[in-house]
Amino acid sequence: MGERVFVREVGLRDGLQLVKRMLPADRKLEWCRSAVEAGVPEIEVTSFVPAKVVPQFADAEEVAKGALALGGNFTAAALVPNSKGAERALALGLPKINYVLSASEEHNLANVRRTTDESIKDFANIVALRNSSAAGRTRLAGGIATAFGCTIQGVVSEKRVVEIAARLAELGADEIIVADTVGYAHPNQVRRIFKAILRAVAPLPVAAHFHDTYGMGLANVREAVRLGVRTVDAATGGLGGCPFAPGAAGNVATEDVVYMLHGLGFETGIDLDGIRAATRFCRDELGVVPTSRVFAAMAKA
Amino acid sequence: MGERVFVREVGLRDGLQLVKRMLPADRKLEWCRSAVEAGVPEIEVTSFVPAKVVPQFADAEEVAKGALALGGNFTAAALVPNSKGAERALALGLPKINYVLSASEEHNLANVRRTTDESIKDFANIVALRNSSAAGRTRLAGGIATAFGCTIQGVVSEKRVVEIAARLAELGADEIIVADTVGYAHPNQVRRIFKAILRAVAPLPVAAHFHDTYGMGLANVREAVRLGVRTVDAATGGLGGCPFAPGAAGNVATEDVVYMLHGLGFETGIDLDGIRAATRFCRDELGVVPTSRVFAAMAKA
Repeated sequence: MGERVFVREVGLRDGLQLVKRMLPADRKLEWCRSAVEAGVPEIEVTSFVPAKVVPQFADAEEVAKGALALGGNFTAAALVPNSKGAERALALGLPKINYVLSASEEHNLANVRRTTDESIKDFANIVALRNSSAAGRTRLAGGIATAFGCTIQGVVSEKRVVEIAARLAELGADEIIVADTVGYAHPNQVRRIFKAILRAVAPLPVAAHFHDTYGMGLANVREAVRLGVRTVDAATGGLGGCPFAPGAAGNVATEDVVYMLHGLGFETGIDLDGIRAATRFCRDELGVVPTSRVFAAMAKA
Repeated sequence: MGERVFVREVGLRDGLQLVKRMLPADRKLEWCRSAVEAGVPEIEVTSFVPAKVVPQFADAEEVAKGALALGGNFTAAALVPNSKGAERALALGLPKINYVLSASEEHNLANVRRTTDESIKDFANIVALRNSSAAGRTRLAGGIATAFGCTIQGVVSEKRVVEIAARLAELGADEIIVADTVGYAHPNQVRRIFKAILRAVAPLPVAAHFHDTYGMGLANVREAVRLGVRTVDAATGGLGGCPFAPGAAGNVATEDVVYMLHGLGFETGIDLDGIRAATRFCRDELGVVPTSRVFAAMAKA
């Protein structure tokens, strides 16, 4: 058996935030169930953002509760952009919370209307909330969006990204997520940034989150895994985008990532046919065209 | 200035062989001219196969002559599947001939109706033809198709692929091309096969040819380049396919490869906007949807 890489489904969060068609909570849970059945070990089931910012997540509580009730051997996680969101997630007893701020000041301002430093400070509040809550065992990830560049600001300082990662680790993160929100990263940049962050936050696990805007998604996953990253975000079919990253394409597709990792000799516990079923479900429910190459290739074969 | 990687345009050959709409010779030459203007150093302008096998290449002589007449600082190359094709190409004085056989016996039989060993022997004839022809300075590449697997035969022996490469080198190839005709390769396989071939045929240059069927095209290019490969095939917009490789997707897109190589610090001499213009031309002339992510991203930006 090969070494394990944890592929996390973010389609229900990242994949849905740009989709205009509202997917009812029970449909979201059906998608979630199909991912669980396919063997996905962690699923970001929703986002605790204000409903007026992303109406698609107005049902965050209902979806999170439903996901917790699903059973199955998986971790239900949710994204939160601030301590308000964390409170909501903690109140439900979610076992994992992914807090995300942007390394790009301008993206952070557009996204959550405060500076990156203010968002870093808020992470300390969230750690305190977690520590004092009944859900004291909830794992807290500290995520860094626009870590490889920003559609608004352009270049993002690599030094700053590494500093933020170290700071989040210091404040009590159980995991660091490094996200190429807009899909600008190329493999050399991945090597530089992940090497520095892995060193800065060791022994914390570091997760990689890539978008495929310029086609470099899988090359970047490959590079991250080569450096020792063992947690990779992906979305069913290659859905995804960011309201404040115009032009960004979807996340790397779950089936493409899984296909490559299996080819590289890693074990994921994920069944490719199960993911393809989830992609067909999304295609039919959301009316979107999956960008996954594996999905297209296997449909033709 | 970074180290140079030679990106070769194969869209006019690989990209066209599955396209049903006949592109008139003058349109092919316009495409060729736009690639030359974009700075592409080598272009596979046509294929000297029997017109009844691939009607799209019935105009091979006309296109090759036209390409030679274009001027501009590029190498006009053509694919040939046998010594008959090589005679036609040599008669025109083409500076580069890419001879291709299949490592998969079954693919070779389907493609050229003879065994791989018969095709290897024919390469010796082609070397002799070249040596005795007026075009004695024509460079001869020995290409190995289905080097990473075959839609008909399935698995292809890696040992056999390396042996064929060594044999082609021994017989007088000036370059070895290793092709993932159907897009099955993953980065570990690329590492194993290219490492072994680079060692077996040194100091001959080795070129990499990938299709993006399972989305691994750029990750594979990245891996090949990391090993020292400095010649990479690509097609405008990501066109391509093989009549005997059902389900195979197009070549890696020229713009995606160039974008990544520039990001990695390599120099290609190729202007991205020029390639995008060529892709728009192909889209409009051929009625195909480009699969290049860079093309899509830059169109949105």
